[in-house]
Amino acid sequence: MLISRRTTMTALLGTAAAATLQASAHAAAPISGQQAPSFYRSKVGDIEITAISDGYATFPKIDGFVRNATPDAVQAALAEGFVPTDKVQIPFTTLVVNTGGKLILIDSGNGDLAAPTSGIWMKNFRAAGFTPEEVDMVVISHFHGDHINGLRLKDGTAVFPKAEIKVPEPEFTFWMSDDNLAKAPEGLKGNFNVARRVFAPMAKDVTLYAWEKEVAPGIVAHAAPGHTPGHTIFSINSGKASFMAVSDITNVPVLFVRNPDWAVMFDQDPDTARASRHRVLDMVSADKMQVGFYHANFPATGFITKDGGRYNLVPAPWKLPV
Amino acid sequence: MLISRRTTMTALLGTAAAATLQASAHAAAPISGQQAPSFYRSKVGDIEITAISDGYATFPKIDGFVRNATPDAVQAALAEGFVPTDKVQIPFTTLVVNTGGKLILIDSGNGDLAAPTSGIWMKNFRAAGFTPEEVDMVVISHFHGDHINGLRLKDGTAVFPKAEIKVPEPEFTFWMSDDNLAKAPEGLKGNFNVARRVFAPMAKDVTLYAWEKEVAPGIVAHAAPGHTPGHTIFSINSGKASFMAVSDITNVPVLFVRNPDWAVMFDQDPDTARASRHRVLDMVSADKMQVGFYHANFPATGFITKDGGRYNLVPAPWKLPV
Repeated sequence: MLISRRTTMTALLGTAAAATLQASAHAAAPISGQQAPSFYRSKVGDIEITAISDGYATFPKIDGFVRNATPDAVQAALAEGFVPTDKVQIPFTTLVVNTGGKLILIDSGNGDLAAPTSGIWMKNFRAAGFTPEEVDMVVISHFHGDHINGLRLKDGTAVFPKAEIKVPEPEFTFWMSDDNLAKAPEGLKGNFNVARRVFAPMAKDVTLYAWEKEVAPGIVAHAAPGHTPGHTIFSINSGKASFMAVSDITNVPVLFVRNPDWAVMFDQDPDTARASRHRVLDMVSADKMQVGFYHANFPATGFITKDGGRYNLVPAPWKLPV
Repeated sequence: MLISRRTTMTALLGTAAAATLQASAHAAAPISGQQAPSFYRSKVGDIEITAISDGYATFPKIDGFVRNATPDAVQAALAEGFVPTDKVQIPFTTLVVNTGGKLILIDSGNGDLAAPTSGIWMKNFRAAGFTPEEVDMVVISHFHGDHINGLRLKDGTAVFPKAEIKVPEPEFTFWMSDDNLAKAPEGLKGNFNVARRVFAPMAKDVTLYAWEKEVAPGIVAHAAPGHTPGHTIFSINSGKASFMAVSDITNVPVLFVRNPDWAVMFDQDPDTARASRHRVLDMVSADKMQVGFYHANFPATGFITKDGGRYNLVPAPWKLPV
């Protein structure tokens, strides 16, 4: 009936008028397809933390993603989180810490070496009002590519020209050792090359930091090895407030917060990683500390509750503009 | 020591140079205090839904907020959600539904009759790329002020000049009846006045819609009375996809999804509201439907799971830009 009415209108009014009528069948506002810029502020005392999304990557199959769980068990856990069950989508969320005195990044995202659904870090960083030239310091949690590739473009350019780059001493020592590279299993050699691509050109300028000490004003680096030898988490402290950036203490929470004994394929030493995971999740749940994950759904912040031998991630209530 | 060094520098370099030194003690980027615009897109088949935040209001004390729970029980439930326990913060989230053919609002927010932490609807609506003139239709769930005041400014101006306004027939009949106003308890008379302020000037132009029928392309209105006599929820459908806008089937989920037998002070007929709440939460949990709440934390969308006689709201995974 709509078609016949349109046909009649075309006959009566001519093609141009009919085109106008047809256009009026569409909403004045087109389907957007665009989200708001993916940054999110949290306040910790006087410190402002801005989570910056670098999108996500997709691990295209379930088989092999968890070393010690059946695909059926993994799919059941994914279904409980209402995420796709035939693949794993892994989000990336870095933190910008503004102490008022210093602008500090914790990790750098994928840079221009990213999956097609990633590589949006710089766009979101700029949308949040920052420029790379303003960054005083970049503190790195560990040397996997999704955490460090953003430091240096494919063409070799250093992205944060004025920033001091601070890295965990055991991480730098492990990955920059030629002996370790020579004896590494084949599957790990790529990681050595990622670390060398980023850090070799600036090795003499990089600052090595130690665990259990302040790495930047208000930010203390804590040992959390296993995922990598030097994997580090960070407490961010101002007055009585604190926030724990837990880095890759878990991969996606829907799998590994709920099932802390599961080992993601990316955990280099699964037993040590498991011990670190339990220790950290026990601590942040006992202390009711707000946490920030690298691989949780945006804005990737919340609180951990303990539930027998498992844990829950309760997303932090969204802070609205006032 | 810093002060004495600064004093020395001033003596050596003069005031202008000292001011520059002082500025360099602050991060180049100031503390922002600003979130990204509070809108969020979900896709349901070919339909795009944009959640628009209107901020929140604060109910300043716990006592009296829940008719049938002790303050201690309410505080314990708030603590489980990691929200403040000495007050209740109630967010507002309206929906814009773009069918491709029509731009439809579900509810209008608080307009310029808002708490100081609210009244941000129009700013977020425009940030999402919309203008009031583009709105083809506003579908109202019920006549409480936070859902309808946005239709008409304090000065009387109609906000959506080209929109058809569609309201639930039983809601309009109840609140516009002079008999009902005359016999209403004192505490309810204010609600009658809110409804009349908004609707009396356009009573003849308002379209009354019926339950269990399509109220707009792809949007079906469903009965959910109790909160008010004509309280309505909406399924939004495209192809095989659907989404349920559950309006005020609960007030804040941390209290009333977890404790569906609790009655918020705003439920006009608590028993009928409770029956509607159980029926709707049972249905959306059994069907694993994505839901949108009016009073959940932004972006106020997720999935309901059943847990004995209680329910959980699992936030929907954040859709990132790609």
